[in-house]
Amino acid sequence: MDNERLKKQMEFLLEIDKLKTILRRTLLTDGSRRENSAEHSWHLAIMALILSEYANTKIDLFRVIKILLIHDLVEIDAGDTFVYDLQGNRDKEERERRAAERLFGLLPPDQAEDLHALWKEFEEEQTPEALFASALDRLQPLLHNYFTQGTIWRQHQITGNQVLTVNRKIERGSPTLWNLAESLVRELIEKGFLPP
Amino acid sequence: MDNERLKKQMEFLLEIDKLKTILRRTLLTDGSRRENSAEHSWHLAIMALILSEYANTKIDLFRVIKILLIHDLVEIDAGDTFVYDLQGNRDKEERERRAAERLFGLLPPDQAEDLHALWKEFEEEQTPEALFASALDRLQPLLHNYFTQGTIWRQHQITGNQVLTVNRKIERGSPTLWNLAESLVRELIEKGFLPP
Repeated sequence: MDNERLKKQMEFLLEIDKLKTILRRTLLTDGSRRENSAEHSWHLAIMALILSEYANTKIDLFRVIKILLIHDLVEIDAGDTFVYDLQGNRDKEERERRAAERLFGLLPPDQAEDLHALWKEFEEEQTPEALFASALDRLQPLLHNYFTQGTIWRQHQITGNQVLTVNRKIERGSPTLWNLAESLVRELIEKGFLPP
Repeated sequence: MDNERLKKQMEFLLEIDKLKTILRRTLLTDGSRRENSAEHSWHLAIMALILSEYANTKIDLFRVIKILLIHDLVEIDAGDTFVYDLQGNRDKEERERRAAERLFGLLPPDQAEDLHALWKEFEEEQTPEALFASALDRLQPLLHNYFTQGTIWRQHQITGNQVLTVNRKIERGSPTLWNLAESLVRELIEKGFLPP
């Protein structure tokens, strides 16, 4: 391949194949296995497509979807950090910052800059697009936990209150989806699948 | 949940989780396991983001990405049909048509119509967006086969000429990417990984 630009792009597209081997702490809704971060990102992108009407304010849906497609790429180097793991979340920022530099740095400079900016936007949670993307990123595993009767939460001895605290930020992106999430968690508590 | 619309959307988002269990005839590039159709769709969406400059004509990139995100959903009912399987491809159209009706039909009517239209556009391969999406859908498994030295092709006794014939339609979406694909296949033939 003598086209240097296309070569860089191909190297990046080969490298990101590794996201398919990064396992999350979420089960598929049929409970058969843990979900990986690539298929998780796909699910979030479709959720954005279907649920955008519930965003808190007017959003640029295409940017939300771009953010969601690339938001977990840093896990290729930094691994997936369980949102309830306080220890792991302490150095998460630094690990992911270095991962972003290496991974996006594989691309031609203009594309590296674009994707890096999208990832930073997601991490900083300031724009309506980042807030909505972040809300979906919390809602999806919560739904999976609901459909698997909170198995993973119970395995990690997580309480209903912890779930509600950690996921409350869904409200910043979408009050409607937070109402839904809250009612599902309360249902699991009431049915005895999750301690309050 | 008393909101009928949100309930339908959630049913759809739960149902499509099954795409993560549909296995393709492609290996991950590290050769560790077969790829599933959800992570494949994610990979294609990022490929579109990175490679859109090579599209044959001006394209609406957002529509290409939407098409790619949903193009394989029908496999939840119809299964993945290997592109070299002539028998399986005979009734593929009818199986997938029924699957599309059921799956998109889970959504509220306006969204069902939108997604169904995107899927039909992909299948009919007439618009620049569908042609580019289709080119990426052929290029990605070809790249995976290249990086795994044609293992799956050899397992199914597929020749280099078959690979070139089946994938030539990449050219309709992107002559540049077809040049790349062709050179990779010829390299595998020259190195003896694939019979001509």
